[in-house]
Amino acid sequence: MLHQSIQIEVPGRELDETIQSKIDLKTKPLGALGVLEKTALKICRIQNTLKPALHKPAVLVCAADHGVVEEGVSPYPQEVTWQMIMNFTGGGAAINVFTRQHGMQLLVADAGVNFNFDPATPILHRKVRKGTRNFAREWAMTPAECDQAMRHGAEIIDQLHAEGCNTIIFGEMGIGNTTAAAALLCKYSGTAPAYAAGAGTGLKEEGIRHKISVIEKALQLHASITEPFDILCALGGLEIAMMVGGMLQAAQNRMIILVDGFIVTSALLAAQAINKNVLEYCLFSHQSNEKGHQAMIEYLEAEPLLNLGMRLGEGTGAAVAYPLVESAVRFFNEMSSFEEAGVSK
Amino acid sequence: MLHQSIQIEVPGRELDETIQSKIDLKTKPLGALGVLEKTALKICRIQNTLKPALHKPAVLVCAADHGVVEEGVSPYPQEVTWQMIMNFTGGGAAINVFTRQHGMQLLVADAGVNFNFDPATPILHRKVRKGTRNFAREWAMTPAECDQAMRHGAEIIDQLHAEGCNTIIFGEMGIGNTTAAAALLCKYSGTAPAYAAGAGTGLKEEGIRHKISVIEKALQLHASITEPFDILCALGGLEIAMMVGGMLQAAQNRMIILVDGFIVTSALLAAQAINKNVLEYCLFSHQSNEKGHQAMIEYLEAEPLLNLGMRLGEGTGAAVAYPLVESAVRFFNEMSSFEEAGVSK
Repeated sequence: MLHQSIQIEVPGRELDETIQSKIDLKTKPLGALGVLEKTALKICRIQNTLKPALHKPAVLVCAADHGVVEEGVSPYPQEVTWQMIMNFTGGGAAINVFTRQHGMQLLVADAGVNFNFDPATPILHRKVRKGTRNFAREWAMTPAECDQAMRHGAEIIDQLHAEGCNTIIFGEMGIGNTTAAAALLCKYSGTAPAYAAGAGTGLKEEGIRHKISVIEKALQLHASITEPFDILCALGGLEIAMMVGGMLQAAQNRMIILVDGFIVTSALLAAQAINKNVLEYCLFSHQSNEKGHQAMIEYLEAEPLLNLGMRLGEGTGAAVAYPLVESAVRFFNEMSSFEEAGVSK
Repeated sequence: MLHQSIQIEVPGRELDETIQSKIDLKTKPLGALGVLEKTALKICRIQNTLKPALHKPAVLVCAADHGVVEEGVSPYPQEVTWQMIMNFTGGGAAINVFTRQHGMQLLVADAGVNFNFDPATPILHRKVRKGTRNFAREWAMTPAECDQAMRHGAEIIDQLHAEGCNTIIFGEMGIGNTTAAAALLCKYSGTAPAYAAGAGTGLKEEGIRHKISVIEKALQLHASITEPFDILCALGGLEIAMMVGGMLQAAQNRMIILVDGFIVTSALLAAQAINKNVLEYCLFSHQSNEKGHQAMIEYLEAEPLLNLGMRLGEGTGAAVAYPLVESAVRFFNEMSSFEEAGVSK
């Protein structure tokens, strides 16, 4: 199984003092660039360098369907998953706009959409099965299926890495996946369903109450499961599993992972439960407006760059935050020191 | 006087419904782009269009010195003002890095620096006098001096506008100017000095207490002044006056003003006291870590895009926020509607 073979190094702290001193000698009051300074330090640490660089940043949008939609947890019909994939290929979705803006490569992978795509559709065809099973009644994925989706994610990331990419954003599409993400949050962190389940694509109060009851039922059914990988199999989604594999591989490759919102962070909950060291490679891009994301951020003690009230998925929060990460790298590399600039300190 | 001749139109609301409807029909859950949606609406309204565009975004850094430094309110010596200007011309300051990153023009104006620049120095030479007078003892500027600095700002903005710029960021440099900005905050909004004065470039607790007492003394001295323009003359700075003139002119020209942190917002406090309509053209870029900025943001009921713990000045907060404003314009122009994309709503 992939999750048993992943090896993630903890980046060394040997350069930390030198990095911090270089930041402190820049022509600015001490600490005046705030979170950008912490971001620069973390990137230098990940890359073990005083010359950090972001190469070929890419967005991988993983898509799949969810058996749990038969419980009536989403106001949108399941066909929206494949329709949005066609929208991605047509260039009209939000993630297309933001990746174009920032010159980032966009890859879209079918991890398990309930639709027969024409083989000519310009996506990565990695369908494991046509959607998960309904996790309110049974395991969403068998261990073999989940492992297959994780391997697909890892392989795609390895390929990107081989092509020179060192900074990766995961995005997702899958009607019903806020229900899976909320269930994963509950199981991995002990959060109560009432604090984990939110509006998703647009549920009203009654719909959210129903979603909470579906998650409660599922947690009872899967109460005896405790292994991180088994939790992912039971409650996750194929696109979530693909991201988990991709994240673990990205960290093994010492790539920077710019973490998006609710669904992507649910994948990270699984990834860090499998191997805590993955967190050493993560920057958090934004605080989603989807209710349970706050609980995830607190559980991970993360400090997201943005809080813009976004809740769209697709990796859009991370994509719009990308220039800030670039700003962190650039000030570190390009700003003069007091001495270089002849400014009194 | 410039401030008596400014005419600022309130942008019409006729298109608001059409703009909002176009936003709501994009392929995303309702409201899922959060603050970016509000930003797009405001830009469309300012430009009175369904095809918003940001043209030739520019940063104007206004620099000047402050007589109040003789009260010992800054840990940095006054010479840092001109030294940092040389750093700007050398390309090594933070604002150089971020304007390069985003392809923005950077202009640096000497509004009143206490230094004789070589005329060949590539800055806008608009010195009114070598720094303000000490506002703890007398008016910082005469009305004629303040008006002159405002006119310089207005003329520079008019020139940029004539060259096709429709989006402007103001930045500033001036040792001592957090003391002036804090005093302006107190006088325009009624905030108490203890809530207005912060660390500036790096004061410790005792230094901040002293700064508060200097401001208290100044407020007593100038207690009888009530006219917005007179307050600016008495407590402001030449770079602040230049920004006030620039902001009023930018609004008259229907340009978008992307507002930076503490000092720039103090200029906006003056500008909006002179003509409230200037606020119709402002987007707020970031919440500064300088203490009094929170009070300014609350007073203006603003919603800044970023909160990164930055407190550097130079327009850096606005510069790093610029790509988010661009993202707002781009999603509005480029995203498909449900109908165009063939996605079920």
